[in-house]
Amino acid sequence: MKKTFDALNRALPHIQDLRAYVPGEQPQGTGWVKLNTNENPYPPSPKVGIAIAGELDSLRKYPEPTSAKLRAAIGARFGLAQANVIIGNGSDNILDLITRCFVSDPGAGHTVPSYSLYPVVAGMSGQALMDVNFDCLMQLDVAALAATQAKVFFLTNPNAPTGVPFALTEIEAALQAIDGLLVVDEAYVDFGGESAVSLLKDYENLVVVRTFSKSYSLAGMRVGFAIASSKIIALLDRVRDAYNLDCVAQAAALAAFEDVDYFAEQRSKVMATREATRAQLDGYGWFTYPSATNFLFTKPKNAAGESSAEVAASLFAHLKAQRVLVRYFPSHPLTCAFIRVSIGTDVEMKAFLTAVESWTNNA
Amino acid sequence: MKKTFDALNRALPHIQDLRAYVPGEQPQGTGWVKLNTNENPYPPSPKVGIAIAGELDSLRKYPEPTSAKLRAAIGARFGLAQANVIIGNGSDNILDLITRCFVSDPGAGHTVPSYSLYPVVAGMSGQALMDVNFDCLMQLDVAALAATQAKVFFLTNPNAPTGVPFALTEIEAALQAIDGLLVVDEAYVDFGGESAVSLLKDYENLVVVRTFSKSYSLAGMRVGFAIASSKIIALLDRVRDAYNLDCVAQAAALAAFEDVDYFAEQRSKVMATREATRAQLDGYGWFTYPSATNFLFTKPKNAAGESSAEVAASLFAHLKAQRVLVRYFPSHPLTCAFIRVSIGTDVEMKAFLTAVESWTNNA
Repeated sequence: MKKTFDALNRALPHIQDLRAYVPGEQPQGTGWVKLNTNENPYPPSPKVGIAIAGELDSLRKYPEPTSAKLRAAIGARFGLAQANVIIGNGSDNILDLITRCFVSDPGAGHTVPSYSLYPVVAGMSGQALMDVNFDCLMQLDVAALAATQAKVFFLTNPNAPTGVPFALTEIEAALQAIDGLLVVDEAYVDFGGESAVSLLKDYENLVVVRTFSKSYSLAGMRVGFAIASSKIIALLDRVRDAYNLDCVAQAAALAAFEDVDYFAEQRSKVMATREATRAQLDGYGWFTYPSATNFLFTKPKNAAGESSAEVAASLFAHLKAQRVLVRYFPSHPLTCAFIRVSIGTDVEMKAFLTAVESWTNNA
Repeated sequence: MKKTFDALNRALPHIQDLRAYVPGEQPQGTGWVKLNTNENPYPPSPKVGIAIAGELDSLRKYPEPTSAKLRAAIGARFGLAQANVIIGNGSDNILDLITRCFVSDPGAGHTVPSYSLYPVVAGMSGQALMDVNFDCLMQLDVAALAATQAKVFFLTNPNAPTGVPFALTEIEAALQAIDGLLVVDEAYVDFGGESAVSLLKDYENLVVVRTFSKSYSLAGMRVGFAIASSKIIALLDRVRDAYNLDCVAQAAALAAFEDVDYFAEQRSKVMATREATRAQLDGYGWFTYPSATNFLFTKPKNAAGESSAEVAASLFAHLKAQRVLVRYFPSHPLTCAFIRVSIGTDVEMKAFLTAVESWTNNA
């Protein structure tokens, strides 16, 4: 070695302290019932494959840089213009753009628990993230939210990992109360939540973020978007990588977005399966939060009728041994006695419930 | 409007001053000979289409987050490990990761002229970008480079828009002379440059950046990578979006990378066409920089034998009227009398030369 470089000490201080986001486990091999990352159990619209095939001759060329067609289609759907929409390489990309544009001292804010990417996104820009803690009722504390004086407040609605939706009146109260931007992350809204898009006409301090990962079955394709005032979108566009979305992803998302019948059908199936699964969990006597998402956050009881972190961890481990993968969040008192179960097909949910019952009977 | 939000004044100060990158023009409609954005005139390996088709059943699921297979293949090719490689959503994404990790006061550095994205990337993080000016010989001034004390110095090799390659001895001299990181952006190296990858074993202050956009004909797919010490890669990984590359792009890039015969064949064709075109330009008596890339940077002469910004602008406009699109950089004294011509197919270059001759004959 002719020249060394102490990379860690040369990195910016906030990078030295940063921990990367830990994605949900993607098990290798077959035979898994995978209910841990809120993927849609159904494939995307068949029109997606056709659209992708149509892009193969264009791969050698740079993509259209602004995802103009997709933005126009999304804008039109919501009665807005292309200039009100920005496309991200996944909604995570959008959250990063917002942070880079608008977050300065005292930092961003989020509720706890919520999406575990927010601390990573804030940390990547060296910004603090302030917590607004839920209690077990999971109701929005608008006064606490405003008291953070966050430059940007990230609010997941419906919330994750609980599935609990907030009413539009609560979102509007938050918009009234805060001084900064409210980012309503509607990753799951298509499964029964109330969208804040209708509030955009009255509130310039609102950004609505959506994704194609869940309701459009395109998690593998990395497409998300934000809707906001054209002034906000134009600023976000300044920090957007000029070619952030490849031509295949643009075409795939547009095809999925335009196949409204297919979309409605799959969404209804997921919601019906969710309610049927919920009824089973209710039948076990478990507490499950009301869900407007494609997952259920439920508090398992063992054969003795007990709930605790140990009980939830025991169920998680038992399910995993049965090759049923759910998500367990042990690190917070409001989540550690729960498991989060993504809604799969009816067959997958039956496998999940069978595995649950084999645990209850043997625990 | 119940609540306004002055987005521009609420944005961070450096965002208020930031100008977004302006990509090369992507003309609409057919009939264009498009020689303006250094795209490969040949399609990617036929194995790319097969690989993409193989991903259609995976779209509903999150992609493998670390692009592990692609990183392993790239590492193995260079006698390095997966831990020495990071994949970006285009190499622009990589340049941003490097900036976010390592650039602090007094800022980053670059040569002038070079890739016009560097100022944007530095500006996105609110950092200064220091210039090291070339003269018309386009030789590397290592002392000037070191004198910037840049935390990160971006060096395009072969350079753009000139096409001029720097020798490995010059790169090594720069690595010796500087205190910060040297990022050697090898976007065009496959067309005849000398790669700095061999220097990685001796210099920990080196990051080599590559792209699939040019030599692998995948500009539309957005895949780039960096090779460096595992310590540097691990830090870059902290600011990488957890799912920055979709499953289709991962599969497409891997298929292109592994089809070495196809790659070698297309590359040879491009280089042969480049030299044939160059011989024609030499025949016109034009000065053209030696190119180790897939483009030529040439100084047109009009019928009177004159070269100037006006002459270059006149040729650019004439070519565009003939639906031959090249790139013109009017804003710098070292570039304003030149045009940059990407290497197309032999047929496309013939169309270019015919259009040039119609200009010379009428100018």
